[in-house]
Amino acid sequence: MLLDLIKKPNDIKNIPAESLPELAKEIRTFLVEHLSRTGGHVASNLGAVELTMALHRVLTFPEDKLIWDVGHQSYTHKILTGRKDGFATLRQLHGLSGFPNPSESDCDAFIAGHSSTSISLGLGFCKARDLQGQSHRVVSVIGDGALTGGLSYEAINNLAGMKSNYTIILNDNHMSISENVGGMSSHLARIRTSSYYTGLKNDVEVSLKKLPMGDRLVSGIRKTKSGIKQLFIPGMVFEEMGIMYLGPVDGHDSVALERVLRQALSIQGPVLVHVVTEKGKGYRPAMRHPSRFHGTGPFDLAKGLPLSDSPVTYTDIFSTVMRKLGDRNPQVVAVTAAMADGTGLKRFRNMFPERFFDVGIAEGHAVTFCAALAAGGMIPVFAVYSTFLQRAYDEILHDVCITKQHVILAVDRAGLVGRDGVTHQGIFDLSYLSTMPNLIIMAPKNKWELSDMLKFAVDYKGPVAIRYPRGEAVTLWKEKRQEIILGKSEVLLEQEGSKVLLLAIGSMVRTAMETAEILQEEGIAVDVINARFMAPLDMEMIRQAADRYDAIVTAEDNVISGGFGEHVSCVLEKLHYAGERILIGVPDEFVHHGAVEELMEELQMDASSIADQIRRVKI
Amino acid sequence: MLLDLIKKPNDIKNIPAESLPELAKEIRTFLVEHLSRTGGHVASNLGAVELTMALHRVLTFPEDKLIWDVGHQSYTHKILTGRKDGFATLRQLHGLSGFPNPSESDCDAFIAGHSSTSISLGLGFCKARDLQGQSHRVVSVIGDGALTGGLSYEAINNLAGMKSNYTIILNDNHMSISENVGGMSSHLARIRTSSYYTGLKNDVEVSLKKLPMGDRLVSGIRKTKSGIKQLFIPGMVFEEMGIMYLGPVDGHDSVALERVLRQALSIQGPVLVHVVTEKGKGYRPAMRHPSRFHGTGPFDLAKGLPLSDSPVTYTDIFSTVMRKLGDRNPQVVAVTAAMADGTGLKRFRNMFPERFFDVGIAEGHAVTFCAALAAGGMIPVFAVYSTFLQRAYDEILHDVCITKQHVILAVDRAGLVGRDGVTHQGIFDLSYLSTMPNLIIMAPKNKWELSDMLKFAVDYKGPVAIRYPRGEAVTLWKEKRQEIILGKSEVLLEQEGSKVLLLAIGSMVRTAMETAEILQEEGIAVDVINARFMAPLDMEMIRQAADRYDAIVTAEDNVISGGFGEHVSCVLEKLHYAGERILIGVPDEFVHHGAVEELMEELQMDASSIADQIRRVKI
Repeated sequence: MLLDLIKKPNDIKNIPAESLPELAKEIRTFLVEHLSRTGGHVASNLGAVELTMALHRVLTFPEDKLIWDVGHQSYTHKILTGRKDGFATLRQLHGLSGFPNPSESDCDAFIAGHSSTSISLGLGFCKARDLQGQSHRVVSVIGDGALTGGLSYEAINNLAGMKSNYTIILNDNHMSISENVGGMSSHLARIRTSSYYTGLKNDVEVSLKKLPMGDRLVSGIRKTKSGIKQLFIPGMVFEEMGIMYLGPVDGHDSVALERVLRQALSIQGPVLVHVVTEKGKGYRPAMRHPSRFHGTGPFDLAKGLPLSDSPVTYTDIFSTVMRKLGDRNPQVVAVTAAMADGTGLKRFRNMFPERFFDVGIAEGHAVTFCAALAAGGMIPVFAVYSTFLQRAYDEILHDVCITKQHVILAVDRAGLVGRDGVTHQGIFDLSYLSTMPNLIIMAPKNKWELSDMLKFAVDYKGPVAIRYPRGEAVTLWKEKRQEIILGKSEVLLEQEGSKVLLLAIGSMVRTAMETAEILQEEGIAVDVINARFMAPLDMEMIRQAADRYDAIVTAEDNVISGGFGEHVSCVLEKLHYAGERILIGVPDEFVHHGAVEELMEELQMDASSIADQIRRVKI
Repeated sequence: MLLDLIKKPNDIKNIPAESLPELAKEIRTFLVEHLSRTGGHVASNLGAVELTMALHRVLTFPEDKLIWDVGHQSYTHKILTGRKDGFATLRQLHGLSGFPNPSESDCDAFIAGHSSTSISLGLGFCKARDLQGQSHRVVSVIGDGALTGGLSYEAINNLAGMKSNYTIILNDNHMSISENVGGMSSHLARIRTSSYYTGLKNDVEVSLKKLPMGDRLVSGIRKTKSGIKQLFIPGMVFEEMGIMYLGPVDGHDSVALERVLRQALSIQGPVLVHVVTEKGKGYRPAMRHPSRFHGTGPFDLAKGLPLSDSPVTYTDIFSTVMRKLGDRNPQVVAVTAAMADGTGLKRFRNMFPERFFDVGIAEGHAVTFCAALAAGGMIPVFAVYSTFLQRAYDEILHDVCITKQHVILAVDRAGLVGRDGVTHQGIFDLSYLSTMPNLIIMAPKNKWELSDMLKFAVDYKGPVAIRYPRGEAVTLWKEKRQEIILGKSEVLLEQEGSKVLLLAIGSMVRTAMETAEILQEEGIAVDVINARFMAPLDMEMIRQAADRYDAIVTAEDNVISGGFGEHVSCVLEKLHYAGERILIGVPDEFVHHGAVEELMEELQMDASSIADQIRRVKI
């Protein structure tokens, strides 16, 4: 096995060039076998095998800085930097992270998780290098998707005039380039990377002055412009922004990749290498269904099918309700930031294509776009993961809340998301959304409540956020389906002689009920209230609770700081509440990866831990 | 006076075309005279007079949607929509807003204030229009500066494939286009806006196939590319993104403007009209010093000089300290998002040009860029207004806080900023920053404390935010210059028998001292503590205060929700504090424009109001 020769960073340089295709094959087999057991990001990693190998042939680790955008495609990088053995524990509690992380290896230049950061980071590393007179290489690898994020454009715009070397790899796994244009483009690429072209470019001013201006040029432009446009896409945009464009290059041709990378690294100033790769390359099921194999749980290696049936999730419920709302109300439109699949909007898109908008990885734009859709008479629903909505903080405040636009934020993956880890936990939204005036914030306890809250939001004339967690939609409780009323909580469990209230929000309502059950068996009576609204808070309920209970326990899957519990505490403080207070929530720190259940236990947020904490209170 | 004929929207259409230059002159005189008395945005408004007039000639209000980016250039729009008389109260409490606002006039399609929102909004208005089968026009006006913001690129990227009309005006008041290139460009513009060109473009596929491909084309491209590049900047980028480019057009030529606008409005799909304007046009002092006349207080009309001497501001102090820090420590670098002037970094730029970075209006990129600068060994200081830092919420959390990068956020204009109003108040930063793990947050009470906090931040190895207000730097108090210690507050006033504590942060410390003085005269003893740190809180001090005082009054110039007072309340709640609590701060609502002092009074945040609230407490 060639793979056995890769024990530490830079070992790949000792593999003979003619053996690289064999090594690529071994890496793919290794990845597919391991990921079929642990789950993980399959398609993107299979697509980036040769590219990563070529980068490791031309760069030296850890001296050179290689920055992965988003980072879920860095598995081969982990293998080539000596972390092969970690794959048995990939994405598991205290195991190998699914993303780059400098605390895991000094060959990971920076963390990643959210999109479009790699060029800003690359520029920062370059400037720090240049100011300190260092000479290592800086390379960012960004996907064509991440390039739709405004952050990457802000960085590209800022590269202009840079004199030292910086290489951006555009890992393009989406665009299908036809034979004809592709052939011409690679022909142009050879010309453009030749020293002749480099010389020409460095002398633009001079060559411009020598050009025959006037009628001939103008008529030439008129005739050829469309053609030029076709030939240079997308290079022309980069060239206009002051970045030399090389490519496109076949991302599965090790020889071509290594050659173009060496060329790129020899050029002064920013260079973009356009690499065309195929998602899922080498594993047929992933090539056929790249979306299903983006991030996946364990799967059957031979059939390419999930090992376990997936339960009905909140995302599924959202999907169904959106379809119904779309049917009923022609004003309802749906917006996603490149997540039609993940957020469950695929069905809405199929049924109402003209009322569905995928805006790219552009959460800020999505929100401002929604604000104007609302001002123009529509009812936009922006479905987005909690952690990614952080990108739109200002747009929510500035464009939606000030003018009270009727925009609905469907905040999926709120709370702990588990295996994606520290960059993806949706544990800040209750805090950052609750400081925004005019915004209604809700969280459902179970599946029908999500449905009712969505309907409530469509009828409410103003900004609304509904946050719900990843995973299985809860279907517990046979209680009456109580109507959603603005700012009103719901009593779920009232017991004779109870002196303790568990006041929970969202997914923690289920945990609260489980806690009450545990304690009930021990003869400790605990009441449970489902808060439903984070904003406005149910002040009347809190006042009554302060009078009635000796202990009030709040529970949320959000950081404590600025969260639900603290807002309740502030009300209780005003009331001079003298009873016991317990705040269950995520401590004010970042949370690593692991199964959600494991993390809940670790953070003392599971029913058994909460019961312990209640028992400790002397009532 | 022609201006007297403009009483309501669309009245300008009755002015004969040949009188337009005269009207422009009258508008400029009107603006300069009024602004010399009230202050306001001078340079940008003088530059946009003809452009606004032309837009009002071709559009119909309020049916058509005209969206101003940033919005401070909308004064002529206000005049032409019947708000001329409001200019006597411009930017004053309950007077005319300095920005567009739909609640002021239905001719203002949307609010503005923060940069780069207009294309996202334009697209939203277009889609809402098209879905409802309406046919009004949608026009966005964006400056070349705002185009550096990633939000505008996200929107531009999302325009591709749009079939209905949408016009973007690029109000370019920065780029100086030389006679030669300019002449060729306007020649090209005429060709490109002709119906011949439009027809050609609509048939790109067909015309492409007819083009002579192969060697001749390639050699033609090689020869002309640099030239084309020069001729088409920035049009080529827009064309590549699927937007038709028209221009550049002289933004002070009413006839040319009206012609190109009519052409733009007749085209299906998105069109960008490149309009070249001159900031400050028609008023010599503003033309010479466009930066000074960006936003100004009242000024002497004849001399173009401010009427009052400007006091030493916190920005000035920051400026001085940065120069010293730059001198002392070669690791210190400074970053601004297009605000070198406003944030006081001009001096640092002049002294250390290689360590100064203006990244454009790109706060998100600025922060991520800083994260890598720090990871690469530098100590970056990002100077930014509180309200604009909102754009970088996710970047602070994801790229700075998770990995504890040593990035210093110098948060200027924190608290109420006054006349710029609702979109600019810096009243959310304590809330949104304080939920971020690992971030130290400080606020100085006076000028030397800002200086000491900056030095503390440079020595501290981790992320730090220092927030300080707009306006005069406080120099009060002769007390000993107590060292800044992490998480430690400072006792400023201890009085015999005092039962009330005023615990204030940042600029409210001064107000707290004034309050204590007022009450002292009445025989009420109030102690004052300067919190210094918002995070970490001084828990020891709060514990002692809970034991000692019958009333604890917190004071901050931030919204109550999630702010300093609420964090203190949560600690007190845990301690079962039974005393009185008063939270002084901005109520949880947006705050309109007016002088800071007036707003403080209105919000009951001035010393006299706080004294009233303390008197009402029965101690």
